[in-house]
Amino acid sequence: MSQELKQRLFQELEALVLIDPHTHINPHAAASKNLADIMGYHYYTELAHSAGLPKDQIEGPEITAKQKVGNVVSKLADLDNTVQVSWLVELCQEFFGFESDRITPENWEQLYDNAEQAMAQPDWEQQVLTKSKLEKVFLTNDFDDPLTGFDTNLYIPCLRTDDLVFHFTNPAVRERLNKATDVDVSDIDSLRDAVGKLFQHFKQNGVRACAISIPPSFSPAKVEDESAAKAVRRACKRKELSDDQQVHLSQSIFWMLAEFCAEFALPFDLMIGVNRKVYPAGVFQGQDLFDKRVSLIQYKELFNAFPQVTFPLSVLGQTSNHELVSYAWIFPNVVTNGHWWYSNTPSYIELDTRSRLEAAPRSKQIGYYSDMYKLEFALPKFRMYRRVLAGVLANDFVIGRGWTEERALELGRQVLRGNVERIFQV
Amino acid sequence: MSQELKQRLFQELEALVLIDPHTHINPHAAASKNLADIMGYHYYTELAHSAGLPKDQIEGPEITAKQKVGNVVSKLADLDNTVQVSWLVELCQEFFGFESDRITPENWEQLYDNAEQAMAQPDWEQQVLTKSKLEKVFLTNDFDDPLTGFDTNLYIPCLRTDDLVFHFTNPAVRERLNKATDVDVSDIDSLRDAVGKLFQHFKQNGVRACAISIPPSFSPAKVEDESAAKAVRRACKRKELSDDQQVHLSQSIFWMLAEFCAEFALPFDLMIGVNRKVYPAGVFQGQDLFDKRVSLIQYKELFNAFPQVTFPLSVLGQTSNHELVSYAWIFPNVVTNGHWWYSNTPSYIELDTRSRLEAAPRSKQIGYYSDMYKLEFALPKFRMYRRVLAGVLANDFVIGRGWTEERALELGRQVLRGNVERIFQV
Amino acid sequence: MSQELKQRLFQELEALVLIDPHTHINPHAAASKNLADIMGYHYYTELAHSAGLPKDQIEGPEITAKQKVGNVVSKLADLDNTVQVSWLVELCQEFFGFESDRITPENWEQLYDNAEQAMAQPDWEQQVLTKSKLEKVFLTNDFDDPLTGFDTNLYIPCLRTDDLVFHFTNPAVRERLNKATDVDVSDIDSLRDAVGKLFQHFKQNGVRACAISIPPSFSPAKVEDESAAKAVRRACKRKELSDDQQVHLSQSIFWMLAEFCAEFALPFDLMIGVNRKVYPAGVFQGQDLFDKRVSLIQYKELFNAFPQVTFPLSVLGQTSNHELVSYAWIFPNVVTNGHWWYSNTPSYIELDTRSRLEAAPRSKQIGYYSDMYKLEFALPKFRMYRRVLAGVLANDFVIGRGWTEERALELGRQVLRGNVERIFQV
Repeated sequence: MSQELKQRLFQELEALVLIDPHTHINPHAAASKNLADIMGYHYYTELAHSAGLPKDQIEGPEITAKQKVGNVVSKLADLDNTVQVSWLVELCQEFFGFESDRITPENWEQLYDNAEQAMAQPDWEQQVLTKSKLEKVFLTNDFDDPLTGFDTNLYIPCLRTDDLVFHFTNPAVRERLNKATDVDVSDIDSLRDAVGKLFQHFKQNGVRACAISIPPSFSPAKVEDESAAKAVRRACKRKELSDDQQVHLSQSIFWMLAEFCAEFALPFDLMIGVNRKVYPAGVFQGQDLFDKRVSLIQYKELFNAFPQVTFPLSVLGQTSNHELVSYAWIFPNVVTNGHWWYSNTPSYIELDTRSRLEAAPRSKQIGYYSDMYKLEFALPKFRMYRRVLAGVLANDFVIGRGWTEERALELGRQVLRGNVERIFQV
Repeated sequence: MSQELKQRLFQELEALVLIDPHTHINPHAAASKNLADIMGYHYYTELAHSAGLPKDQIEGPEITAKQKVGNVVSKLADLDNTVQVSWLVELCQEFFGFESDRITPENWEQLYDNAEQAMAQPDWEQQVLTKSKLEKVFLTNDFDDPLTGFDTNLYIPCLRTDDLVFHFTNPAVRERLNKATDVDVSDIDSLRDAVGKLFQHFKQNGVRACAISIPPSFSPAKVEDESAAKAVRRACKRKELSDDQQVHLSQSIFWMLAEFCAEFALPFDLMIGVNRKVYPAGVFQGQDLFDKRVSLIQYKELFNAFPQVTFPLSVLGQTSNHELVSYAWIFPNVVTNGHWWYSNTPSYIELDTRSRLEAAPRSKQIGYYSDMYKLEFALPKFRMYRRVLAGVLANDFVIGRGWTEERALELGRQVLRGNVERIFQV
Repeated sequence: MSQELKQRLFQELEALVLIDPHTHINPHAAASKNLADIMGYHYYTELAHSAGLPKDQIEGPEITAKQKVGNVVSKLADLDNTVQVSWLVELCQEFFGFESDRITPENWEQLYDNAEQAMAQPDWEQQVLTKSKLEKVFLTNDFDDPLTGFDTNLYIPCLRTDDLVFHFTNPAVRERLNKATDVDVSDIDSLRDAVGKLFQHFKQNGVRACAISIPPSFSPAKVEDESAAKAVRRACKRKELSDDQQVHLSQSIFWMLAEFCAEFALPFDLMIGVNRKVYPAGVFQGQDLFDKRVSLIQYKELFNAFPQVTFPLSVLGQTSNHELVSYAWIFPNVVTNGHWWYSNTPSYIELDTRSRLEAAPRSKQIGYYSDMYKLEFALPKFRMYRRVLAGVLANDFVIGRGWTEERALELGRQVLRGNVERIFQV
């Protein structure tokens, strides 16, 4: 009975048309061209590498798209337990008429060809959007993205700011900034001018959020004017920065971004807890991990200083979820946001969803985003979430609290879509 | 079948008469007078504020009790997913004949009036105690509470010591201490005299526990005599204390309290992990949060130094539960105590209950306390716990281990009541 | 239906013959001689002590085996909720024909005598191995173990290295090393000679892993040659080491061990997170606990430096499991290894198993080891794990993903046995 109830709720949730509030889609090439675009997703290359496939059989200019797929397929038998591979199989079944439940050295070439044929259709991108019930898709745009050549009503700009905050000492970043803004950045005032221009440019092009991913060691703070000015000045002059100055530089730019979010009425997506290049010999995008010893208490000053800015928070480590629930419960400007990366697997989504739905305001929960690089992934990833959500609504609300199914579904629709519309004003 | 089993166990657990081992009840006004007493509970004001209700619509001398309720009700639609609001609705259904499953702008005024009428009955307090099956209720008493004017056999004194340990440098605290004890506290010896008098006074009035809530950064330790004496002396002379001296002061007073707990044979309830005023612009009692980077290893010296003192431990962050289970498993004087505040929601209670019941001695687990400020909350809060407990007993013990239902219920009764009687000698 | 499915899978998993990849079995006395060997296991003595049994009723030369059992039995009523005691009861039912579901002051003497009689049979060890379906059993050998007098094909040597890394300043350890290797260790070069001889000796005797347990504060690192040499030299000369030198000493020896693991193609089992003697007044082996503030990021340098060494990782605190899953997902040389000690209880095993099976390569997961000191414990401990595993396979794979039962069982068999064979080449 519980299984049937869950299934009924799932079917209803499946009918919902979505806005995906965080992806890495390239709007100029949103859908895939071949299976290598799909199986080149770091989830597959890193898992195949972790299971023993040498990096040089995955990356390198001499490897063709088809060879790469074949190589990854050779390791899939070691990975078919993972939910990541279940996304892949489900995607191939839904989009390419794949009929097996495993991709094997025997059947992958046929699949490759079928997929390539399907993707060659001129309206493939639209087919994927329609079949996936995607109405709008948030992007992750470099700060110097011209934002031209695509429909910003469908592909919604989001200003990604990691480079500014954490790589400002890199001359290439400062050059890109100068070029994008026509401001010769040499001190904190000209930096503020430049960043303001970025926000104006993005605002004019329909930006709906500013976003950043943050290492566990970082604590946002308002830096004293003089220290901030000095750190920026030294960076612009290519002078060596002490560790403290580097921290002050990042904190100053971060704080400036929060101020612009306030001025431009933009939510500031914080993706908290990633350590970059922990495994530098890993495959592309398969090198990052985390240190669970991070606390949202590090954000205390920020949340208090910017009551007018909404902070949708993603946490990388599952053990951070309880803090996230509690901070969203207390701070009006803190919102729970999806299930990020290493926490984006069903058993953790279930724990997180249960604890959020039972304790924090329903209006302050963004259920899910796909984080995808290619459009085809929205369908299986959101479906995974909808399955878990249907289970939680069935067990905790319909059975546990005696709610009607319709009332439970209203809650599900709100966290899946309604809150996205309201919080990002989209 | 599993649902029916769980329901049967729940009904049996519901029949049990309780001793509530930790509350904030005011014994001179234990029950509520109107719905504002109930909806003024920080769980509702802070959630309404978190969902967007401005603080000035919740607090302020010009707001009447009824207005305050109306304002909070205006936000309930954003909160009705929470278990906190489910307590409220269940309470209104049980005590005030409320028949809807939601409190809305349309129906709340009738509810308000019905509730006020019910609460005006002269025997309301007794009605609530009876209906809630409450036999005794532990209090949280300021150290200078005269403990007069109420039945200490029903409302059991508990000496709360946060002020002494963490606010001794506040002159008002020292004045209260001097006044309560007639001791002119000027150094560590006179401080010990004064604190000893507090314990005597409480002991004479049936105290059953000493209690304190502790920030994540604090580590109890025995301070060298000279450092301790100096820190107390400086505080008494209103001299500035260095950070180290402030820590020594808190540690010295804490240690002294543990010594008196040993002397007076009192359990020392430790509520570990709260950061106060993280969100200072929040509503009353809705400003505190936590830093999950705390470990019970910080209490190693304490637990070893006082084998004769029982320490019932509450942890604020759910990620501290595994340490709690393990420390209760090893240290004879460590006892698990309830599900505190941000960990007091069903999915976390379930995880914690399962892990405790399967690994630590059954005699060392205090299942639940209400932490309530008004009597009406014991019923829905304990009911939430009894539901979770019934589920765990059904799945893990009756189904999982083949226990008879009666055997499982004995375990449930022990953690719900038996251990409270034995551990607090009540 | 789900219960029946789970039961079916459990029965199939029960049929599997095992290799136990980590125990503390003494191959010269692998099985028990009497119930004191069994109930003297620290799980029972520490829990009985935790529940109030004084240490002097458990340990001390004057206490006979039978008295010790009687004393522990006197506390079992306080512990019968624990899974640890359920192992004991199940073991007595399976091996000694015990028919009750509780061991009590009334029935334990009969049980004691029956058990003693059973264990006196000349083929008892073989009976236990057969009934427990144990094909091979890994040991935990001191570095100076001669490895003679037992069948190393049945009892597989594993080189335990805690003493070398963390107690090298102890003269007794250095004496044992000198004696075992005939090398007069006086500096880092002679130390390397000696350790190399240990590896040779173990390799010649069929060693299949090197192992170590590590406190939360330790971070492996390559120490500069000069610092390493100096730390070793001072230790050999019995000179005082500064805290930094002590750390360098441990790091240097640890790194040397990893180098030898690479040279000898041995997996290096890391058991991460134990603090020793947290409760020094506790019973034998019942004194250790942990500090959850540990991160696998502390092992970043190690995992990168030794891609050719496989590191099966056990974590003591359950909150470390998410990092473990994620590090095994990314690092090719990191493997998840069982459920250790305080994490070895069903609700935590369930969480850990679900999250591992859904996210990390199936080829990189060692499901379980018994960690036992006496052979009789493999049966109930592995059975506990198989129950949990059957439940996860039933719910998450057969029901949740539509897998056939056979496909799910293949996954179960791989993590229970197949990976042990492959990873340890046994």
